[in-house]
Amino acid sequence: MPENSKEKFGRLMSINSPEDLKNYDGDIEILAGEIREFLIENVSKTGGHLASNLGVVELSIALHRVFTTPRDSIIFDVGHQSYVHKIITGRKDVFSTLRQSGGISGFEKRGESEHDCFGTGHSSTSISAAIGIAEANRLKGENDRFTIAVVGDGAFTGGMIHEALNNCDPHLKLIIIINENEMSISKNIGHFAENLSKIRTSRGYAKTKRLTRRALSRIPLLGKPFSRFVTSVKKSIKNAVYRSNYFEDLGLYYIGPIDGNNYYQVENALYNAKEQGENVVIHIKTKKGKGYEPAENDPGKYHSMSPEGKKASDKPTFSEVFGRKLTSLAEKDEKICAITAAMCDGTGLCPFKEAHGERFFDVGIAEPHALTFAAGLAANGMKPVAAIYSTFLQRGYDNIIHDIALQSLPVTLCIDRAGLNGADGATHHGIFDVAFLSEIPGMTIYAPVTSKTLEMALEEAVICGKPAAVRYASGREDERVVNAFYGENKWENEALSLRSDIPAGEKPDVLIVTYGRIVLEAMEAKEKLEKEGKKCGIVLLEKLKPYDETAEKLLPYMPKKNGLILMLEEEIRAGGCGMMLTDAFERKGHLASYKHIILAPNESFVIPQKGETVFDVAGVSAKHIADACLKNI
Amino acid sequence: MPENSKEKFGRLMSINSPEDLKNYDGDIEILAGEIREFLIENVSKTGGHLASNLGVVELSIALHRVFTTPRDSIIFDVGHQSYVHKIITGRKDVFSTLRQSGGISGFEKRGESEHDCFGTGHSSTSISAAIGIAEANRLKGENDRFTIAVVGDGAFTGGMIHEALNNCDPHLKLIIIINENEMSISKNIGHFAENLSKIRTSRGYAKTKRLTRRALSRIPLLGKPFSRFVTSVKKSIKNAVYRSNYFEDLGLYYIGPIDGNNYYQVENALYNAKEQGENVVIHIKTKKGKGYEPAENDPGKYHSMSPEGKKASDKPTFSEVFGRKLTSLAEKDEKICAITAAMCDGTGLCPFKEAHGERFFDVGIAEPHALTFAAGLAANGMKPVAAIYSTFLQRGYDNIIHDIALQSLPVTLCIDRAGLNGADGATHHGIFDVAFLSEIPGMTIYAPVTSKTLEMALEEAVICGKPAAVRYASGREDERVVNAFYGENKWENEALSLRSDIPAGEKPDVLIVTYGRIVLEAMEAKEKLEKEGKKCGIVLLEKLKPYDETAEKLLPYMPKKNGLILMLEEEIRAGGCGMMLTDAFERKGHLASYKHIILAPNESFVIPQKGETVFDVAGVSAKHIADACLKNI
Repeated sequence: MPENSKEKFGRLMSINSPEDLKNYDGDIEILAGEIREFLIENVSKTGGHLASNLGVVELSIALHRVFTTPRDSIIFDVGHQSYVHKIITGRKDVFSTLRQSGGISGFEKRGESEHDCFGTGHSSTSISAAIGIAEANRLKGENDRFTIAVVGDGAFTGGMIHEALNNCDPHLKLIIIINENEMSISKNIGHFAENLSKIRTSRGYAKTKRLTRRALSRIPLLGKPFSRFVTSVKKSIKNAVYRSNYFEDLGLYYIGPIDGNNYYQVENALYNAKEQGENVVIHIKTKKGKGYEPAENDPGKYHSMSPEGKKASDKPTFSEVFGRKLTSLAEKDEKICAITAAMCDGTGLCPFKEAHGERFFDVGIAEPHALTFAAGLAANGMKPVAAIYSTFLQRGYDNIIHDIALQSLPVTLCIDRAGLNGADGATHHGIFDVAFLSEIPGMTIYAPVTSKTLEMALEEAVICGKPAAVRYASGREDERVVNAFYGENKWENEALSLRSDIPAGEKPDVLIVTYGRIVLEAMEAKEKLEKEGKKCGIVLLEKLKPYDETAEKLLPYMPKKNGLILMLEEEIRAGGCGMMLTDAFERKGHLASYKHIILAPNESFVIPQKGETVFDVAGVSAKHIADACLKNI
Repeated sequence: MPENSKEKFGRLMSINSPEDLKNYDGDIEILAGEIREFLIENVSKTGGHLASNLGVVELSIALHRVFTTPRDSIIFDVGHQSYVHKIITGRKDVFSTLRQSGGISGFEKRGESEHDCFGTGHSSTSISAAIGIAEANRLKGENDRFTIAVVGDGAFTGGMIHEALNNCDPHLKLIIIINENEMSISKNIGHFAENLSKIRTSRGYAKTKRLTRRALSRIPLLGKPFSRFVTSVKKSIKNAVYRSNYFEDLGLYYIGPIDGNNYYQVENALYNAKEQGENVVIHIKTKKGKGYEPAENDPGKYHSMSPEGKKASDKPTFSEVFGRKLTSLAEKDEKICAITAAMCDGTGLCPFKEAHGERFFDVGIAEPHALTFAAGLAANGMKPVAAIYSTFLQRGYDNIIHDIALQSLPVTLCIDRAGLNGADGATHHGIFDVAFLSEIPGMTIYAPVTSKTLEMALEEAVICGKPAAVRYASGREDERVVNAFYGENKWENEALSLRSDIPAGEKPDVLIVTYGRIVLEAMEAKEKLEKEGKKCGIVLLEKLKPYDETAEKLLPYMPKKNGLILMLEEEIRAGGCGMMLTDAFERKGHLASYKHIILAPNESFVIPQKGETVFDVAGVSAKHIADACLKNI
């Protein structure tokens, strides 16, 4: 913590635990202001989610003053708005390590603190987990423990929230806090959000409300005819001026809407909820970026920040390359549609949205729907392209099998953020896509690592008339890769398959076969090997599946007799590219005269420790690769 | 078709296409009666879903008289209630082949007929697909085509429906028919179903309704104060006597509830919907099993029928063994909880529900929620066991990774109907579970094929304190397997790993390594091989993963030098047990002195043709196995 912290954060400095916060008797607004200052100062250095955390400062303070973790459980949906919770629960002094190697996670995480009761990272899981925790309390007879889920309005576009709301038994006394900040990642999509913002109910005290309700329900003759009258009136006007409350329809006691940036309103609502003895929804409205003008004015920009000081490249990111190329393909082909699950910015689809708004669909955080919707489009003659981050595509696994592949429908999956992703931690690695797509019959898989090959892969995938996937990493192409494998624009007019840096006629001692961004580690390993006097060649795969075809194409690049083939995997070993190619080779007897190993990220969910890269900790860095070669040659 | 058909089905005989049905000017009720008779006669022979199809006879007739497929698209959610649709659309004469080898599918299926616009099988996908089809119509400028989704009320417990409802753009003119039959597989679970059955709205004609609505909305001064009055009154009484309409809140025009077994009411509602020019929900109520007294009285029993004449074994099914064992384990351990996704009967959990109702959770057709809920229970000290069919577990792939495995929570997955499943067709094969669970770090996988080993596996899994999966086929243990591998109760007091039929000290020419029900094919192949003079040994794996451990345990059973190891896969080859074991062996150099092949079901979605078994058509029958051995030995 910097020297001047003691002055600047005088009140915050004294808060080292939720207990300190409960005992704090100073001005809450001043404390909230210090926390905001602290967030801005740190997150602008570490990177992370600034705007949403600025919005929930009062809520987080109130939660920890009204409830007591770990006895009570608080789950933040997605978890990216748990920073203030972390600051309060004893992680203030390590907060500058947020999202850094060996530092604290940007999401709630079991193991990091007893105050983090359930790990999050993917959207819309919190109420399901909360119900589990609350049912366990009930079964153990610990009925004085409260379970609170804090859910952004965007999470309601995900089906899991509705599955969970449908399973809230009244005896659980769940407290669900809906944080409406009028924007979740891109913006809230669909009717749910629209309705939420229209919900208006009396703000009277809950007790009175409940008494009235009970009293009225005891008048049997009044009930029915009166309700009919209400019904017919309501039906006539409600679409014009009024919408009813979904939560109360589901049997949840509703409090709100509350100004979530007014501390005392929030605290009152929480005390209120605590006394209900039934499930409660508290609907708060917060201002994303609250207290930091640039973030208030442009919360999208400050939703997730990169650390300052990183020099931006003048090359476009892979997401941008994808978005632009798809936009231009769609100019010539009216059948191309683009689908995103609340990631228009992140996936690079904004230019498409602007140019072809009619064919652009943002379905909200709803990957299963996105994929089956794409299948429906394809079944009726369109060429849908669904752009989804690798880790989130996992949520649509069955939809890919059941709705796309089983019917062999021409849906293109564009899989962004594939491979090991550092700062977001284990929940955001994209290390399963190659394995799970390899299982799926009839799926073609491309793995471009340059802008040009990404464009080519996209074009091939869209016109192939079958299910196809194009997976690519975050970030941009690396000049070194272009130079090593694509010198002098050699890729023009060729179909994608693979590239090699092996001079014609040469047979290396070691052949490294790989794909994806990890090729840079392979290139560095090659240097190390050549220093040791070993000739090393690298094959960079552009297209992985069909694997038989890829194996066949690999034959001309085999190492010398009894040489080593090292298949370097960027993702999970089980069922990945290395295993699939080994299988393809073995069926043809091609491996008989070589040594052969697969090197893949180790089977723990990789989190880098201080001073390490993801490749180091996963055991697939240049050094690991070189060592594995030398050991096996 | 039987001799007496012409008399018995006089009217139905004349209906060979939707056009015939449109031209039919006889008594609709008599025709409906004939269709019911026809269904009962056929389904009692072929097996299949009787009760739900008896319920939608009037609806299906009305749909095909009011709309025109394939120009208009009708999607039946899950698809098991599409039999009448099939009968009407030219498949009456092949209806006796329903669910038979080479016959028609028990679900809607593209390719089977131009009238089946989108394949179904898994629940809650229909509205997503319908939106895709409708958007494609819009983009192609074919605005006169209608898209209709027929959805059972049970499907609303699945999150995808809500993701889709949130994405119904008004211009699509979708028609969503909610078929409330007060029971979906088990019974409807949760608040949604409860509310649905309480929805009451005026049955006045839609036009009037719309005019009123418009007129009222034009009176600006009336609107607001009046609505406030309505609001405060409504809030006070609605939980007691009235609930509002979720669909209209979502901007869908609501018609209903309608008596779905009254033909003219249904037809009126459909015409009505057609004229709306906006998205419409028609809420119908039907009687499951309508017209067949035994099915009306016990629709659960007649939900899915087995063909008549099959002799029931006196052995319990694997589902029953599982359910009973878990019930008895839970007597001794109060932390054990059971979770099902609307499959209490199917998974064998009814005894558990009866004995330990407090710890039994049926969450509806909501696999993602089921698994994250289980993770929540486990995070708070319980030992949850989630019993889910293999094909449906695919829907919770990310929840297994993100919520269970990443946190290493002790959730046990009990995976029923694993492997190739015949009559239900491609959507119901359970051929991905081994591959996708093998990818997931830290997961243990058991594959018992006898009652006793299933019990042992379950017990080991529940107490192991980590994520674990027990996968087993439909049906029951086979005496031949017990005799070959478990003679004289040899399994007592041993941990599960593997079993072999190889006499001590013997080295076979061929070693077949396998797991699951397909071991019966291996045993038959062995007979064939021994007739050819080849010594064959079989290892039956009880526990698949960790694979290194399994590979180590396999070493004593290796064939003679230069002999053949055939890994026989019951599921998809890619990433399956065969590949995983090969990889484990190769890392230790154990395969060097053997020939080695993997035989797995071929990579098409297997559907048996006439006279074939699933094993035949998948290329993994006893004959295929023996041939592969002889060819490679």
